[in-house]
Amino acid sequence: MKISKVGLFGKFNDDNIGDTVAEIRQLLQHNNLKVLLGGTTSTAIDGERLDDHKQPLAELIDLAIVVGGDGTMLSVARNLAKHNIPAIGINLGRLGFLADIAVHDLGASLRAILRGDYHIEQRTLLTTEVGLQNEIRYRGDSVNDAAISKGNSGRLIEFEIRVNGQFLSHIRSDGVIIATPTGSTAYSLSAGGPIIYPTLPVFIVSPICPHTLSNRPIVLDHNAHIEIASMVFAETPANLSLDGVIACKLHGDEVVRVRKAAETWSMIRINQHNHFETLRSKLGWNE
Amino acid sequence: MKISKVGLFGKFNDDNIGDTVAEIRQLLQHNNLKVLLGGTTSTAIDGERLDDHKQPLAELIDLAIVVGGDGTMLSVARNLAKHNIPAIGINLGRLGFLADIAVHDLGASLRAILRGDYHIEQRTLLTTEVGLQNEIRYRGDSVNDAAISKGNSGRLIEFEIRVNGQFLSHIRSDGVIIATPTGSTAYSLSAGGPIIYPTLPVFIVSPICPHTLSNRPIVLDHNAHIEIASMVFAETPANLSLDGVIACKLHGDEVVRVRKAAETWSMIRINQHNHFETLRSKLGWNE
Amino acid sequence: MKISKVGLFGKFNDDNIGDTVAEIRQLLQHNNLKVLLGGTTSTAIDGERLDDHKQPLAELIDLAIVVGGDGTMLSVARNLAKHNIPAIGINLGRLGFLADIAVHDLGASLRAILRGDYHIEQRTLLTTEVGLQNEIRYRGDSVNDAAISKGNSGRLIEFEIRVNGQFLSHIRSDGVIIATPTGSTAYSLSAGGPIIYPTLPVFIVSPICPHTLSNRPIVLDHNAHIEIASMVFAETPANLSLDGVIACKLHGDEVVRVRKAAETWSMIRINQHNHFETLRSKLGWNE
Amino acid sequence: MKISKVGLFGKFNDDNIGDTVAEIRQLLQHNNLKVLLGGTTSTAIDGERLDDHKQPLAELIDLAIVVGGDGTMLSVARNLAKHNIPAIGINLGRLGFLADIAVHDLGASLRAILRGDYHIEQRTLLTTEVGLQNEIRYRGDSVNDAAISKGNSGRLIEFEIRVNGQFLSHIRSDGVIIATPTGSTAYSLSAGGPIIYPTLPVFIVSPICPHTLSNRPIVLDHNAHIEIASMVFAETPANLSLDGVIACKLHGDEVVRVRKAAETWSMIRINQHNHFETLRSKLGWNE
Repeated sequence: MKISKVGLFGKFNDDNIGDTVAEIRQLLQHNNLKVLLGGTTSTAIDGERLDDHKQPLAELIDLAIVVGGDGTMLSVARNLAKHNIPAIGINLGRLGFLADIAVHDLGASLRAILRGDYHIEQRTLLTTEVGLQNEIRYRGDSVNDAAISKGNSGRLIEFEIRVNGQFLSHIRSDGVIIATPTGSTAYSLSAGGPIIYPTLPVFIVSPICPHTLSNRPIVLDHNAHIEIASMVFAETPANLSLDGVIACKLHGDEVVRVRKAAETWSMIRINQHNHFETLRSKLGWNE
Repeated sequence: MKISKVGLFGKFNDDNIGDTVAEIRQLLQHNNLKVLLGGTTSTAIDGERLDDHKQPLAELIDLAIVVGGDGTMLSVARNLAKHNIPAIGINLGRLGFLADIAVHDLGASLRAILRGDYHIEQRTLLTTEVGLQNEIRYRGDSVNDAAISKGNSGRLIEFEIRVNGQFLSHIRSDGVIIATPTGSTAYSLSAGGPIIYPTLPVFIVSPICPHTLSNRPIVLDHNAHIEIASMVFAETPANLSLDGVIACKLHGDEVVRVRKAAETWSMIRINQHNHFETLRSKLGWNE
Repeated sequence: MKISKVGLFGKFNDDNIGDTVAEIRQLLQHNNLKVLLGGTTSTAIDGERLDDHKQPLAELIDLAIVVGGDGTMLSVARNLAKHNIPAIGINLGRLGFLADIAVHDLGASLRAILRGDYHIEQRTLLTTEVGLQNEIRYRGDSVNDAAISKGNSGRLIEFEIRVNGQFLSHIRSDGVIIATPTGSTAYSLSAGGPIIYPTLPVFIVSPICPHTLSNRPIVLDHNAHIEIASMVFAETPANLSLDGVIACKLHGDEVVRVRKAAETWSMIRINQHNHFETLRSKLGWNE
Repeated sequence: MKISKVGLFGKFNDDNIGDTVAEIRQLLQHNNLKVLLGGTTSTAIDGERLDDHKQPLAELIDLAIVVGGDGTMLSVARNLAKHNIPAIGINLGRLGFLADIAVHDLGASLRAILRGDYHIEQRTLLTTEVGLQNEIRYRGDSVNDAAISKGNSGRLIEFEIRVNGQFLSHIRSDGVIIATPTGSTAYSLSAGGPIIYPTLPVFIVSPICPHTLSNRPIVLDHNAHIEIASMVFAETPANLSLDGVIACKLHGDEVVRVRKAAETWSMIRINQHNHFETLRSKLGWNE
């Protein structure tokens, strides 16, 4: 992969990171890279923007540098996946699972990338569809997870989980999270799910506060077609969230189908990168 | 305690339990007890009703017999607490933690009660107040728990827990449950809380899917004044639920104060009653 | 696969299952199958035995039928793996995860197998080696798990986990379990590990009662080389157990290496078999 | 309480803390306190020792200052309980739940104590007896917990828990921990138990890796008589540990009885002490 044009994606609409963006742009230009600002970057920050161009993204940039936290990274990753553009995440002070490069390490990381001392990690995305009878009411992709949760209700919800058409279980709980390995250290972890090495070909289905104490997280093949159906909500609609953003309301008669997305997203990893170091630091294992 | 008048509280608005109610009434009348139907009982079921009388409840009945599940029992218990009338719970087939007497055992239980072979368990109630500046916007009691949960949001909420004015912790989670020992086997258990013997003078504070994995359930003195404050909700209002029913919306600038209610409620226990037997059966320990 | 000779492996040294063994043998012979009794079968039970023959096992039998519980199945599976002989498990009344066919269903299952209505599930085995300096002190295989546990000590042990030579974490705990997907529903589940679909290419590393609450189970690639090293035991030697049987004592200066075994074992699954049904039944999800 | 004589208990047999001990002694003597070295202090450290005197401890010292970690504190506390001498814990750099005063804060804490600006927290101890038929084979006290664990075995153990003579549950697990509130942040926490405010009148019974997933920690009255009986150990004896030290071997036919000790131990708390601060720091809630 030859890298000559870089998209610089700033933290969503954040006006205060202008200096950091300027500093990174300067560093990139010093390395003879053309820089275009990505759509998440606040328009208050000066610079030529991707949006000024009509061409497909893949013709405009070879690499995306995301400057923000894991949230910005998730949002950019979902968009880049279909263009097959690799991304790298720079954090603004607080280490992220995805934005795991400190600003002051960007120079060294960039040199490593430019000399080819990197590899690409293909990360799985989820495609979630909400079907009602024969119609598809909603379709969306997510990097971390798809979650169904009870919404404005004090009571638990009920639903069935089916895997490749087979009945897995009937659950009464606050909801359920279907997570990729990337998402295993996000919401699913809080719900009791395991940590999963990011490139493994699996999904994890984690019930949220299940009534039956033996309803434990289940690791399934990432080729599995997972369905949440026969939903019963006591009081009000439930919510489907993708990567922590509500995607649509559920009324109970829908079927929510979750499967591996057609596209993956490409995370650039310089070869000395160590995922375990991030784990130790984020989860406080070093003390 | 002399028992001569009994309030019979049927499952909330359920028309189908007329035969069971009739059968129980007959049994009670055979034992020379006067029977009045309580407010939860469907008006489609015949009989003299408590609502037909103007006197205070404590003059009308000496004992409440609740025929339903734990939900009906919770609702009746909240109301009886201030009148100091003891209650006993009959289930309609499915054993409850509170409604733990089978219909076919009612005769024996009743004889035991009438011959004085029982004791009264005082169960703690919670009083929850929602304060905004110097005003109290909401006040309500609950038997099991008070829960703050994130509502229609895909993101976690943030809040502080204070105990007797002292800062305990800052939590990022889906919410938090403050439960009585009675409620320890309900929602709190699903959230990872311990089982608490029902008459112990403690509360349990269980975070729901906390982001920080060491935010574990905490058992506090039931005289503690617990405050949830400095709440931050990403998208939409959060909910305060009492015993699984939404009591009010929270916007973030309120302080939610939870403490022991002034009244307790009295649960009649025939002396041969065994709480551990209910635990084993409900939690599947017998297999 | 043509099946004409069957090894019948009875519950280890159990004299009381003679009738069941006789009944099954009769059924097999009715189907024109030659039957040889496997080594686990009590010698008090009559019949021609595999041990009476000198040939390699693969020449003597095409299929192993194990009559016992999961324990017997584990033991037979370890032995059959190197001979590539598929096995099927019949339970003696109590459903197992491996011995999941009831005696009274054996006839139907057998007919399905004989007409080819089955598939073979390849299940991963673990090979565990205990190295001391350049020497290998112990090597053994297991179907469910390899566990290091503290032995006769009231204190926790310390150790490092390394994956493919990289440092993963330093743990202080009662021990650690490395489990296959098959073993995910055994000891690892009790230690808080997830349920893993049996054929997935992963291992799970579950710490036992870790001191640091964020030391959660981790799912790794089944090609990973996992090392437990830098072990510190306060008082007494620790134990390495394979499938719940102590394999050797550890003194702390060893390195325990766990990786996928060269052989897998073959589990026969009639096509209508449903793993989820076993999960639901074993974990009490049906109630 | 008038304080004029202080026992100084150093970390068990540690020769390297001579300087710290000397420094603390000097501080105490400056405040006109007589100092005697307690039995845990290494004899390589100079000074008049408690062991040089024949009188009962209560006549020799008014206060114990423990310089070490929680382990030293546990050991001193068990001994002081019967003499009713209050203790305070100074840590050697690493904050403890009990040894929660930094050396450099000792001056301020001491002044607070000398001017009466403190209160005494009564902490419950456990008395554990091992009975065999009508004989008591072992009796010992503990501050944190009594634990039964499986010893040199790869298999789980079985036992019954009885409370005040009533059957609570039959458990199959790696063992069980009965903990005081003080011990709730030690071993029990690792096994999934809740955090309990230190002065509450309860015990917690936490199974260790229970086979049945609904066997959750149970909080009981501290006046409860807890019995572990009908023990079945597959291979080898199990262990009874008190505060992490093996007290005796168990062969299965014993009954282990755990109850509140006759004595409590007195922990001195300067009034500005904040238990929650220690919790936050020890459990990493501050980040």
